[in-house]
Amino acid sequence: MESFSKNNRNKVKRLPKRGHYDKATIYGILDAGFICHAGFVVGGQPFVIPTAYGRVDDHIYLHGSSKSRMLNSMDEGIPVCLTVTHVDGLVLARSAFHHSMNYRSAVVFGTAQEVHGEEKEQALFVISENILKGRWDEVRSPNPKELKATSVLRMSIEDASAKIRTGPPGDEPEDYALPVWAGVVPLTQQHGPPEPDPLLRDGIPLAKSLEAFFRK
Amino acid sequence: MESFSKNNRNKVKRLPKRGHYDKATIYGILDAGFICHAGFVVGGQPFVIPTAYGRVDDHIYLHGSSKSRMLNSMDEGIPVCLTVTHVDGLVLARSAFHHSMNYRSAVVFGTAQEVHGEEKEQALFVISENILKGRWDEVRSPNPKELKATSVLRMSIEDASAKIRTGPPGDEPEDYALPVWAGVVPLTQQHGPPEPDPLLRDGIPLAKSLEAFFRK
Repeated sequence: MESFSKNNRNKVKRLPKRGHYDKATIYGILDAGFICHAGFVVGGQPFVIPTAYGRVDDHIYLHGSSKSRMLNSMDEGIPVCLTVTHVDGLVLARSAFHHSMNYRSAVVFGTAQEVHGEEKEQALFVISENILKGRWDEVRSPNPKELKATSVLRMSIEDASAKIRTGPPGDEPEDYALPVWAGVVPLTQQHGPPEPDPLLRDGIPLAKSLEAFFRK
Repeated sequence: MESFSKNNRNKVKRLPKRGHYDKATIYGILDAGFICHAGFVVGGQPFVIPTAYGRVDDHIYLHGSSKSRMLNSMDEGIPVCLTVTHVDGLVLARSAFHHSMNYRSAVVFGTAQEVHGEEKEQALFVISENILKGRWDEVRSPNPKELKATSVLRMSIEDASAKIRTGPPGDEPEDYALPVWAGVVPLTQQHGPPEPDPLLRDGIPLAKSLEAFFRK
């Protein structure tokens, strides 16, 4: 199984047993989400911006307005850190100290550059498919004006790591005798029933992409 | 209503109509969450790390191991950007270009410093209460060894902004005639039934803090 080598940038220092470096684990966490928090530096100041993404092999694609500060800054080849986090539960221990979360997070390092032409259009498809598979083929494709108004960056993944916690709390041996409820409250992202656009024309059935999404 | 003034750091440049600068809106978004993505820079390299937080007035408290790279780096007084994002829905338009998300995000800028003594213990209470109100008083408090193993940082909020999108898609006028389903799929974070620790002693009822949490 292919893995990233540990170095000073991607090494999970705290609770190293929770750290993972294999691509299967890291890319599984990336592919299970569609919003990342992208970090970049302008003039020494960090910015952390939520944005959609999609992955192909060892590349992550980001998109946005061609006027975006984030995308224009990143395209200068500056270092980018991109983090995807799934919060899976509250871990309630018998002591305040051992309270925790169950989570899966992936932290990815690299630099980004703008892409054009066929790769740009393919990247928009990839980002769209990562949010809602099948949607791209149901809707009007971008026209030249819209493509021009959109920038796409490709971030090559240089280093990455994942950090995962699962399972019940771990308390101090003597605390198990305390009369305190302990356990996990699972958290999940759920989708409600679709809300049709008030301007939706009569007689248009629910999108097939959504039917499949709700069957999941 | 008190607001942050717009400047080059916190100004919402893209889709400025979605930008908000008043504390009521920004702090409402912060207080509705408990995991932020904290961004900081070490040697020119940005790091974006998910972590719990709590707010008091114009301060945000972060905690972690006293060995944490994040907390130790931040305590040097370096600039920090802390972002909280709630993804409220997928916005499905008739064109690929107008697809979007409904979301509420707050981006907060400041610098952090370590706190000690009474403020440190109060901050741990604040972070705990922000995750699960009432839990702190149910569990064993931190002992001196645990307090020593924990660092707490106070980040003073210097600038901040929020960005919010709500409502149905906005399509190009000519696209409303397309036979494409359009609308919003609401997304929410849900909690499942509590999973008692397999090592929970018999006869211990569910925590009162959780009863209140599940009534919400």
